[in-house]
Amino acid sequence: MNMANITKKVSWSSRGDDSARGEATPLLNGTEEVRYTRQPSGGLFHISRLSTVDLEEEITSEEDSVRTRPNMIPHNEKLLSLKYESLDYDNIENQLFLEEERRMSHMGFRCLEISRWVICGLIGFLTGLIACFIDIVVEKLAGIKYIVVKQNIEKFTEVGGLSISLILWAVLNSSLVMVGAIIVAFFEPIAAGSGIPQIKCYLNGVKIPRVVRLKTLMVKVFGVICSVAGGLAVGKEGPMIHSGAVVAAGVSQGRSTSLKKDFKIFEYFRRDTEKRDFVSAGAAAGVSAAFGAPVGGVLFSLEEGASFWNQMLTWRIFFASMISTFTLNFFLSIYNNKTGDLSNPGLINFGRFDSDSVAYNLYEIPLFIIMGAIGGLLGALFNFLNYWLTIFRIRYVHRPCLQVIEAMLVAAVTATVSFTMIYFSNDCQPLGQDQTKDDYPLQLFCADGEYNSMATAFFNTPERSVRSLFHNPPGSYNPLTLGLFTLTYFFLACWTYGLTVSAGVFIPSLLIGAAWGRLFGILLSYFTSGSSIWADPGKYALIGAAAQLGGIVRMTLSLTVIMVEATGNVTFGLPIMLVLMTAKIVGDYFAEGLYDIHIKLQSVPFLHYEAPATSHWLTAREVMSSPVTCFNKVEKVGTIVNTLSNTSTNHNGFPVVIQIPDSDEPGMVCGLILRSQLIVLLKHKVFVERARTRLSQRKLQLKDFRDAYPRFPPIQSIHVSQDERECMMDLSEFMNPTPYTVPQETSLPRVFKLFRALGLRHLLVVDSENRVVGLVTRKDLARYHMGKHGLEELQLAQT
Amino acid sequence: MNMANITKKVSWSSRGDDSARGEATPLLNGTEEVRYTRQPSGGLFHISRLSTVDLEEEITSEEDSVRTRPNMIPHNEKLLSLKYESLDYDNIENQLFLEEERRMSHMGFRCLEISRWVICGLIGFLTGLIACFIDIVVEKLAGIKYIVVKQNIEKFTEVGGLSISLILWAVLNSSLVMVGAIIVAFFEPIAAGSGIPQIKCYLNGVKIPRVVRLKTLMVKVFGVICSVAGGLAVGKEGPMIHSGAVVAAGVSQGRSTSLKKDFKIFEYFRRDTEKRDFVSAGAAAGVSAAFGAPVGGVLFSLEEGASFWNQMLTWRIFFASMISTFTLNFFLSIYNNKTGDLSNPGLINFGRFDSDSVAYNLYEIPLFIIMGAIGGLLGALFNFLNYWLTIFRIRYVHRPCLQVIEAMLVAAVTATVSFTMIYFSNDCQPLGQDQTKDDYPLQLFCADGEYNSMATAFFNTPERSVRSLFHNPPGSYNPLTLGLFTLTYFFLACWTYGLTVSAGVFIPSLLIGAAWGRLFGILLSYFTSGSSIWADPGKYALIGAAAQLGGIVRMTLSLTVIMVEATGNVTFGLPIMLVLMTAKIVGDYFAEGLYDIHIKLQSVPFLHYEAPATSHWLTAREVMSSPVTCFNKVEKVGTIVNTLSNTSTNHNGFPVVIQIPDSDEPGMVCGLILRSQLIVLLKHKVFVERARTRLSQRKLQLKDFRDAYPRFPPIQSIHVSQDERECMMDLSEFMNPTPYTVPQETSLPRVFKLFRALGLRHLLVVDSENRVVGLVTRKDLARYHMGKHGLEELQLAQT
Repeated sequence: MNMANITKKVSWSSRGDDSARGEATPLLNGTEEVRYTRQPSGGLFHISRLSTVDLEEEITSEEDSVRTRPNMIPHNEKLLSLKYESLDYDNIENQLFLEEERRMSHMGFRCLEISRWVICGLIGFLTGLIACFIDIVVEKLAGIKYIVVKQNIEKFTEVGGLSISLILWAVLNSSLVMVGAIIVAFFEPIAAGSGIPQIKCYLNGVKIPRVVRLKTLMVKVFGVICSVAGGLAVGKEGPMIHSGAVVAAGVSQGRSTSLKKDFKIFEYFRRDTEKRDFVSAGAAAGVSAAFGAPVGGVLFSLEEGASFWNQMLTWRIFFASMISTFTLNFFLSIYNNKTGDLSNPGLINFGRFDSDSVAYNLYEIPLFIIMGAIGGLLGALFNFLNYWLTIFRIRYVHRPCLQVIEAMLVAAVTATVSFTMIYFSNDCQPLGQDQTKDDYPLQLFCADGEYNSMATAFFNTPERSVRSLFHNPPGSYNPLTLGLFTLTYFFLACWTYGLTVSAGVFIPSLLIGAAWGRLFGILLSYFTSGSSIWADPGKYALIGAAAQLGGIVRMTLSLTVIMVEATGNVTFGLPIMLVLMTAKIVGDYFAEGLYDIHIKLQSVPFLHYEAPATSHWLTAREVMSSPVTCFNKVEKVGTIVNTLSNTSTNHNGFPVVIQIPDSDEPGMVCGLILRSQLIVLLKHKVFVERARTRLSQRKLQLKDFRDAYPRFPPIQSIHVSQDERECMMDLSEFMNPTPYTVPQETSLPRVFKLFRALGLRHLLVVDSENRVVGLVTRKDLARYHMGKHGLEELQLAQT
Repeated sequence: MNMANITKKVSWSSRGDDSARGEATPLLNGTEEVRYTRQPSGGLFHISRLSTVDLEEEITSEEDSVRTRPNMIPHNEKLLSLKYESLDYDNIENQLFLEEERRMSHMGFRCLEISRWVICGLIGFLTGLIACFIDIVVEKLAGIKYIVVKQNIEKFTEVGGLSISLILWAVLNSSLVMVGAIIVAFFEPIAAGSGIPQIKCYLNGVKIPRVVRLKTLMVKVFGVICSVAGGLAVGKEGPMIHSGAVVAAGVSQGRSTSLKKDFKIFEYFRRDTEKRDFVSAGAAAGVSAAFGAPVGGVLFSLEEGASFWNQMLTWRIFFASMISTFTLNFFLSIYNNKTGDLSNPGLINFGRFDSDSVAYNLYEIPLFIIMGAIGGLLGALFNFLNYWLTIFRIRYVHRPCLQVIEAMLVAAVTATVSFTMIYFSNDCQPLGQDQTKDDYPLQLFCADGEYNSMATAFFNTPERSVRSLFHNPPGSYNPLTLGLFTLTYFFLACWTYGLTVSAGVFIPSLLIGAAWGRLFGILLSYFTSGSSIWADPGKYALIGAAAQLGGIVRMTLSLTVIMVEATGNVTFGLPIMLVLMTAKIVGDYFAEGLYDIHIKLQSVPFLHYEAPATSHWLTAREVMSSPVTCFNKVEKVGTIVNTLSNTSTNHNGFPVVIQIPDSDEPGMVCGLILRSQLIVLLKHKVFVERARTRLSQRKLQLKDFRDAYPRFPPIQSIHVSQDERECMMDLSEFMNPTPYTVPQETSLPRVFKLFRALGLRHLLVVDSENRVVGLVTRKDLARYHMGKHGLEELQLAQT
């Protein structure tokens, strides 16, 4: 049997070059580092991927061991991490599975279908509840903060000494943010940020460790409450999507591994294929709760996750979304003492745009397109700045305590900047009849019966500010206020995204866009001396918000629908679509979308919809990893244990082959078995002796695999005695006997399409006689991407 | 080489049973009939599929030849027609194709991408124009008809003799319908109906002959004008979807085969894969123009057609939809003298629902669900009646002249029934200030200043009636009028659908639903003595319309979005969704959706999203057709011509194999070649002599295949001399060298998933040594479906 290590080729241009073989050197902190010690003449840079934690030490130690230093910053954009495993989105149709499916009656399938619906309903309900909880707690905290600070300001406005108010404000904000940052940095770093990139990766098929755990959800929820109440330039909408996904992953499994509680229900759904479907529903429910956009939620899930459209699945996702927005709506209506009034469908509500007052005309279309282009440019600038900031953070701000300090610093600076701008602005507006306590007006140095409009913009929750920018009557803001606000908020938001706090970028983007959009509208009505159609700056605020958000996140159809649903008015469909399209085209020319940048910087092997356009000249032969470690149908336990224990190999699937006796040639494919399956087999000691007597007492069932899912123990935790090592293991019942295969000549786009459309994890490459010659995994495909100078190949790294 | 005929096994339960082999008997009319002459002991019914045209003769002639007569009606529901070929939604990646792709630069791909956008823009624009044309012509014709009939009625109302008015009306309508029916029945029968089932099939991958031709479009457009203006209970929305698809198929090819005009552009797109993408865009543009629902259009295309979601494709489809609704809107605004006012986005416009006046409350939800159930029941009844009617039509009304007469009859009956109901109703309503000439009020026997409301409901175009049911103030209709109207219109619409005219079922369904929904609302306000929340019956009309439409067509997400977009208000999202869901669940319990029924009655091999749930115990071995006709890499021309000319085989793909010398075993797969490719090769005489001298002067290029696409000539039209038959043909350059293969043990769901997700046409089944043992095509998979008693197998028929 061929037991050669799986060796990752570095370059297809020099196959068989042994110098390209990665040498794994265990580091002290347990991570591994691969150094590709190729000669410079090979035409490839020397790439060294360092573990981020031990960065500085490694750079010095590296100097000794290699001659040429890498001439690039050791961020991870041009690398592909090997630490991310794939999810099995293709059913493992082994004998056990088929037997179970065949035993099941038509009625059984119907029951399964019904439980899927029940789960989706539950997902929607719980997601809605969480959204409701976050919303109410944030409101309460913000209210308390407002009262405290307001009283303090009122006390000091006349007597002087507002700096004390400033300090009070900054301290309040910093402490809230500190709490949020501490729980994220020390307890669950994966809960940082909006979670959208992580969910994108999960739906794409990449297993991001700990992303759908209960602990992550807890940290996320409390983290987002702290950071929003702490006055950071963040929103609570992005984290809702992540929260929904975690809820879905939890509910659908009918147990909590963290709480060690198994309800013994929904056991059928304990596999990646089914779980993904529910996570899609959860993400959709999250979007739906965040924006009151159930259709937008469905489209978000599809845009990010779908590889194959299924009507019933989509319909279920839609159901979860609807239930989610409905639950949120219902409970908020009770909270607001308007029980039964279902008019607040999401966390953010753009308010009603009356279609008559904000109609648009044909000759405004070019203006909208210009605004789209501005949004694209500003978005690209935002992403570019954030990109460099993130690299800086990867290099220098990687210790949890540093991260907490940075978050507190940002909170303090945000408070100070806001306060300074409020202090120096003298944009007083009359206090209208309809302004209630909820609008947090601050009088400051304004005359009685007036309020400071800059203070409103800064002091409100961002959601409220967006709404007032959309709907306040013309003249509510003066242009200078808006300009200054845009400028400061832009940089604050950019600095804030990527902090070690749970927070989203949707609302800040909308706010920046709404501010400059309103400014655009006001300037326009100056130049056209205020004729009626230009009169309403709220319309331009909406378009600006769409442009800015589109320029940053680059979502397409789903964002259009989310915006339309949040607006509650389909009239703006065409302008919003045009604006988003322009923003995307202009933005893509300069920089990638924010989420894509972060995914790349994490070196995630993310698969896009299609293979790069110019990749037809690559074939499976060049892409695949080879040689492959194979097993026989009946394999010696010792061999299996050794293979699994070998830390230098990292593939998780092993072809099962029929070896031709007395032949050195690779064997003929007869199946595929996963590391996780082998682990379960070893754990249950499903061994046969040479004489074929079964040693294990009971027949292994699908349930044993499901119980171990998804946290399969590592091979090190399984003890196999020396006697047992001599036993044999019969894999034929557990392997997938019909893995997908492709011939060696298959072009990369064709391999890619098969892989992506079916959500595969391993694809066998065979020769004309069905003998295994290689294995294609996600990383082999994700390596190739379109760079500026045509097709580029990413390097592989172990961290 | 194995030259056995491709024999379709009838039953997997008795493989190798030669008695199951179909015997092809050429009939006089050129169609073929297969009789499965199995013994009754085999447990299978004796099925005889007869050509519908020669039905009666065949029944008599059949009596002689077989002993047991089939004990079932010879409709085609339990059959699968072999006459429908599949489309190649998987790229044929042969050497020529790969060479072209590899030659193309990054810039070249970008240009292609831009031309895709241009084409989508064009598709949207032209579809919008067509919608506009249909709308304006129908309005004009209806206006003329109204004036003529009105004058006549006014003349006779006082003096008596209204029967003359009736006759005038009936004759006018019948003649219009006659014109419409004649062009459909005699020139292009495929243009009958709404065209939605046909487009569903096309997007699913079934080649419906002539469905996307220019002639079909012409007949469709004029047919729909005639049938709508002729006062039938039909809508013009369904045909718009078909029209959009035809426009897309035409524009994207850069030529018209019918007009023999080749613009020499867009040649790259001349293959099924690319064409399908554009047809999706066209269908979406059609929906968008029909309902002003661009997002709904995209979702419709995805729900019906998508196998694989691609962000850029979806975005392009959305672009086409937007352009389409925008174009329609713009030109209609010019027509209505309100240039630049973009408030009429679709052919049907539900009018603005003011969100305040029609808010709903929590306790109305159960009512909505009840309405959904009613809609589901009525929909199932509608479908059931229409099913039997269609079977009746297949049996007895298959001659074109009979079809025209039936259409005229329906038109006359519709006119008579309407007239009678108007005549006997005395539901007079005061003529409001806002009613203009456009509302076609008829005074009849009402007092001056009043009008007959029944006349309004019947005399208006259905679109107007729907709108007035939604928006007319409470009290505009009395309950008896509505009840009678619902009843008559229900049966009229049911009779009308399936006539040989171009017409859609959307609007009649909406109208029926709106009528009983309004009735429901009125009754409700009676019982609750008119408290404010129940006051507006328009809300219930909307819910009723959704319920009825959902009960008939059973669309899910797309219909929800279409309804929401047509309403212009997202508030109703949740109720509409609940209603559609209930209607679908209730309806599915009793009967299938209308489109599915018609697809089944056409015996189309339609592939659903997933394999039947209980089909895990079937494997590729049982599903596949075998033995398979294979070719060698270098094959004798005579052999190829003979194989292609053999009328008893009907597979269109041939595996290319490497035969082991002096062996009877099947050869190893090395490629797959299509009938259409072989035809082009034969036509261009790409022969080599035994001595390998190339006979053809020039190297065959991809262009030659594209020029022949999509109407490849039949083999009979290609003359191959006796000398040429002795030559050889080298297939290696033209075959697809990397066809997808599966092992024999692969379960049906797995085969299905691969086949459906990648849009395959042929899937090779191989043994463990990569030798061809069978071929799976669409029909092999579509045969299995869930019946009432578990998994059922459909029989195959040649017509």
